[in-house]
Amino acid sequence: MWIVPESAIGGLVDDQSAFDAVEATFAAMAREDAYNFPVVREALGEGRQYGFKSGLDRAGAQLGVKAGGYFPGNSAKGIINHQSTVFLFDPDTGILQAAVGGNLLTALRTAAASSVSIAHLSRPDSKVLGMVGAGHQSVFQMRAALRQRKFEKVVAWNYHPDMMDRLSAAVAEAGLPFEEVSLEHLGAQADVIITITSSPAASLMDAHIRPGTHIACMGTDTIGKQEVEPALLARATVFTDEVAQSISIGEAQHAVAEGLVTADAITPIGAVINGTHKGRSSAEEVTLFDGTGVGLQDIAVASKAVDLARANGSAIEVAL
Amino acid sequence: MWIVPESAIGGLVDDQSAFDAVEATFAAMAREDAYNFPVVREALGEGRQYGFKSGLDRAGAQLGVKAGGYFPGNSAKGIINHQSTVFLFDPDTGILQAAVGGNLLTALRTAAASSVSIAHLSRPDSKVLGMVGAGHQSVFQMRAALRQRKFEKVVAWNYHPDMMDRLSAAVAEAGLPFEEVSLEHLGAQADVIITITSSPAASLMDAHIRPGTHIACMGTDTIGKQEVEPALLARATVFTDEVAQSISIGEAQHAVAEGLVTADAITPIGAVINGTHKGRSSAEEVTLFDGTGVGLQDIAVASKAVDLARANGSAIEVAL
Repeated sequence: MWIVPESAIGGLVDDQSAFDAVEATFAAMAREDAYNFPVVREALGEGRQYGFKSGLDRAGAQLGVKAGGYFPGNSAKGIINHQSTVFLFDPDTGILQAAVGGNLLTALRTAAASSVSIAHLSRPDSKVLGMVGAGHQSVFQMRAALRQRKFEKVVAWNYHPDMMDRLSAAVAEAGLPFEEVSLEHLGAQADVIITITSSPAASLMDAHIRPGTHIACMGTDTIGKQEVEPALLARATVFTDEVAQSISIGEAQHAVAEGLVTADAITPIGAVINGTHKGRSSAEEVTLFDGTGVGLQDIAVASKAVDLARANGSAIEVAL
Repeated sequence: MWIVPESAIGGLVDDQSAFDAVEATFAAMAREDAYNFPVVREALGEGRQYGFKSGLDRAGAQLGVKAGGYFPGNSAKGIINHQSTVFLFDPDTGILQAAVGGNLLTALRTAAASSVSIAHLSRPDSKVLGMVGAGHQSVFQMRAALRQRKFEKVVAWNYHPDMMDRLSAAVAEAGLPFEEVSLEHLGAQADVIITITSSPAASLMDAHIRPGTHIACMGTDTIGKQEVEPALLARATVFTDEVAQSISIGEAQHAVAEGLVTADAITPIGAVINGTHKGRSSAEEVTLFDGTGVGLQDIAVASKAVDLARANGSAIEVAL
């Protein structure tokens, strides 16, 4: 088996390779060449969460699982609260092939998902990127998004205005002007909006959004989380990574519960990648991508990491 | 993280240490100090099965998952069809601690489960061990059972009578007489019976079983498998590793479906270990253990393997 340590990932997987891996995965899912197994997610007590996301990609010959969770006591010990590892198996024999550090990969694959949606759904002339949320993940999201369109400015809103420094510094590093704005001003300027918060109630309202906007909702991955007003999903054309997750644990859970949206009206983004759905139909259409996060994304980027690590000699081989 | 390769397990974990680990796990489950997460089990096509069994033992501070499955094409490639690996995580931080070869451990933990039931439920004066099934697992089951009572003879039945050599040789090696018998003669002699078959229909019937017998049904771990007649469960006092699995994927599924047994009437074996259930109440009572196989068993024996491997220097440390 191959070990690719967490410390090696940053030098191996960049935004482009994560984009390619996740785009191919979404395409395979829409062709039904790949599918995710049921998600296991358990509360361990004291705020700890743990679970397993797994799946099979027949097209890419990938079988794997991401084991990971959230451990709120970690930061006091100097380690990050989200901890995960991806394991890959040979789908023909079941034999373990690799264990791959999954912390940075999780950020990269999540950013790649919104990027794929921006590449396939936003207006090609998009100029202003709006960020709702300025936490750890927002920087990955912003950087990956900038590769997809010729953005000229980034505007951002955060629930805690005093925690904007990390994102503003990253935008400056990318050479673009940055502006902290209200949600009203964000919606009035942005052509593409990424929401990446951990919130129990909607921040972004339908009235904030002007025609032609593409919104990638990336923060809602469990029951009870919410980033945008359900009316916005009713107005938008809604796309997602996996419909089953979108309506149950994704942003669409609320609009579905209120009867504003049905599963039939939500399109897997892979259908757009494969050309079986035309995607955006006009410059006025509001498109919304509900990114819930699936195990196959983790498996795809981990598999890419193993390929790259074996090629450059940074993978460690151990007999199991 | 520590790696304990498959090849090291045989020299590390013996029947007694597997027994101790599994007994402690069943006890913790019955005290609700340990619980299993939902099982993931997926058909991958071409007869391949894959899945994940996971759980948390607060008492033993163990969090883990067994990833494994059945790959019928393996034997033609010279590798065994059942392939599994156990991963252990620090329950306080979520950080991966160990990857352990799970093939031999699966056989050992399954044999340990029936052994625990024999130690706690069979008549102390049991003399004859009856084996229904003579496959790969039967040898592990037989050897572990012989440690629990002063057995003087082993009798066995197999669906394919010409495939009895492996089991008969193992009994001879253990220094006991061996007899191949009909199911009628097996039931008429045996004080303890282990069923370890992969069958879609009952072999052992209620009429075969005399009073005072203890039966450990170890082969049924999925919907549709069956080893014994449902009437036998109605007559016996039924114990299990986990009631939820027993009634859904274990041997009790059939008796429950026919309305002969209810979940309330099935006792976790851990309650007997903990002394909150008296176990066998008379020398005439028929006791039946429905061993379905839980993730916590795998985690417990893998954890034992890591402790032993670290102590004797056979664990390999790799930075992840």
